[in-house]
Amino acid sequence: MKPKHSKQGIAMRTVYVNGAYVPETEAKVSVFDRAFLFGDGIYEVASVLGGKLIDFPAHIARLHRSANELGMRIDVSDEEILAIHRELVSRNEVEEGVVYMQLTRGAVDRDFMFDTEKLKPTLVLFTQTRPLVDTAVARNGMKIVSIPDLRWGRCDIKTVQLLYPSLGKMEAKSRGADDAWMVRDGVVTEGTSNNAFIVTKTGAIVTRPLSNAILPGITRAALMSYSTASGTPVEEREFTIDEAREAAEAFITSASVFVGPVISIDGVELSGGKPGPVTLGLRKTYLEESLKRAI
Amino acid sequence: MKPKHSKQGIAMRTVYVNGAYVPETEAKVSVFDRAFLFGDGIYEVASVLGGKLIDFPAHIARLHRSANELGMRIDVSDEEILAIHRELVSRNEVEEGVVYMQLTRGAVDRDFMFDTEKLKPTLVLFTQTRPLVDTAVARNGMKIVSIPDLRWGRCDIKTVQLLYPSLGKMEAKSRGADDAWMVRDGVVTEGTSNNAFIVTKTGAIVTRPLSNAILPGITRAALMSYSTASGTPVEEREFTIDEAREAAEAFITSASVFVGPVISIDGVELSGGKPGPVTLGLRKTYLEESLKRAI
Repeated sequence: MKPKHSKQGIAMRTVYVNGAYVPETEAKVSVFDRAFLFGDGIYEVASVLGGKLIDFPAHIARLHRSANELGMRIDVSDEEILAIHRELVSRNEVEEGVVYMQLTRGAVDRDFMFDTEKLKPTLVLFTQTRPLVDTAVARNGMKIVSIPDLRWGRCDIKTVQLLYPSLGKMEAKSRGADDAWMVRDGVVTEGTSNNAFIVTKTGAIVTRPLSNAILPGITRAALMSYSTASGTPVEEREFTIDEAREAAEAFITSASVFVGPVISIDGVELSGGKPGPVTLGLRKTYLEESLKRAI
Repeated sequence: MKPKHSKQGIAMRTVYVNGAYVPETEAKVSVFDRAFLFGDGIYEVASVLGGKLIDFPAHIARLHRSANELGMRIDVSDEEILAIHRELVSRNEVEEGVVYMQLTRGAVDRDFMFDTEKLKPTLVLFTQTRPLVDTAVARNGMKIVSIPDLRWGRCDIKTVQLLYPSLGKMEAKSRGADDAWMVRDGVVTEGTSNNAFIVTKTGAIVTRPLSNAILPGITRAALMSYSTASGTPVEEREFTIDEAREAAEAFITSASVFVGPVISIDGVELSGGKPGPVTLGLRKTYLEESLKRAI
């Protein structure tokens, strides 16, 4: 099926909203939706490579975890969610890109109090076609700046309360960088939309342990399991931004960047200002292994 | 003009969405709106008494402050915003209730990075008719429980990232209370949707000073100015939840509750389990003075 085209000649996507497949210009939700009024929504972003979904079961598992933590209902089965993902990938002819999925508690007249049982959850999915494998970041790496972590205390729940990370990425841009790492209590928590790793001068791969302060990244977990299988387990411990600046290499993991090389932190060059060899090896391993498991 | 009626026979409100007055069931925004996807929206709630707006200029001023802090554009003039408020109050025949106004950065394909100049802000307003003056809270007071303050570091900006306060109010309900006060670094910050005050046994009225940790409440500021004018200036200093539990009285201020008596904190009764005399006096003064200034 060919995508519809808008007046501007740009391919118009089909978007899923509460059971219906609609053109993106008609994809709307009530102004009373609690994600719009209260940030009461959770989301997942799954990558598509060669038309197949990467790490999909883990994304579904995390959606359930987020919903459970917030007492939010999921009214559709995992099988239906997978079917919607595949239908959108097909309708929008996504070979490489992402599927974004957002679940909200539903729409009801504005009130801080709510009754989840009486609400019908809102489910929205859309796709974005874009290169993920052969990107400028993969080739050239990314520049990072550090900012204080001012987010709320439950960053382990993947809610749509993303204003601070969004402003953080804009601040990074204004400082000539590509992204920001956040620092709380003297240690790095994570990137604005990714987990943070360093490779020490003695070759250890280090990332901070999971807690309420960071998102339990799907790519983080997958990379760690591949790394353990290959005989180099990732060391889980906190690290400071100073230690990161003095590291041999640094990188980020996320569902759509996979393993993204970091080439400078706060203006201090790492690994000669080029993606480091350990990082590139991990990226290669991640892509190979996750493609084997793509569905 | 009579309000339209829905199939259920309930009066259907008219809602304002980006220049149009529409029935509430048709009041929708794009799924790409940044308030829906990123919590990138700000809001104000103005009370209506006798069909007139309370403290309106202060709400407009705070909307501008929030927008400035976030680099968000406001494309409509203050006069237009006032006219929309009045039009909704008229169309929905609001004698007593609130007007909710939300401004977002606009709708655009999902990206943490944004270009405010290229976005058209979304403006949504709706009304809620309900008693504000003669309420159970005003007559009987409210029970408060304390919870840790897990919100982000810029609570002075009135964003729609309200999930934690909403969950906090639900937790209060589950603990048999009406609302929660949040505690950070050992001191009370504020209520889930209001500012917190105590009256000490020596008669001092105390509230914590403004900072990034609390909302600069409109009712808080108005009450403080009326209190100063009557010869009892409010003391601005931090207080602990223990000090609050031992206070003679406690109360909250908010745009729609005005001055709300607190009769217990974490199960400890205050002022004999009834609204205290200082609190009731302040409520009376606030209502008299703000009605004089209503527009």
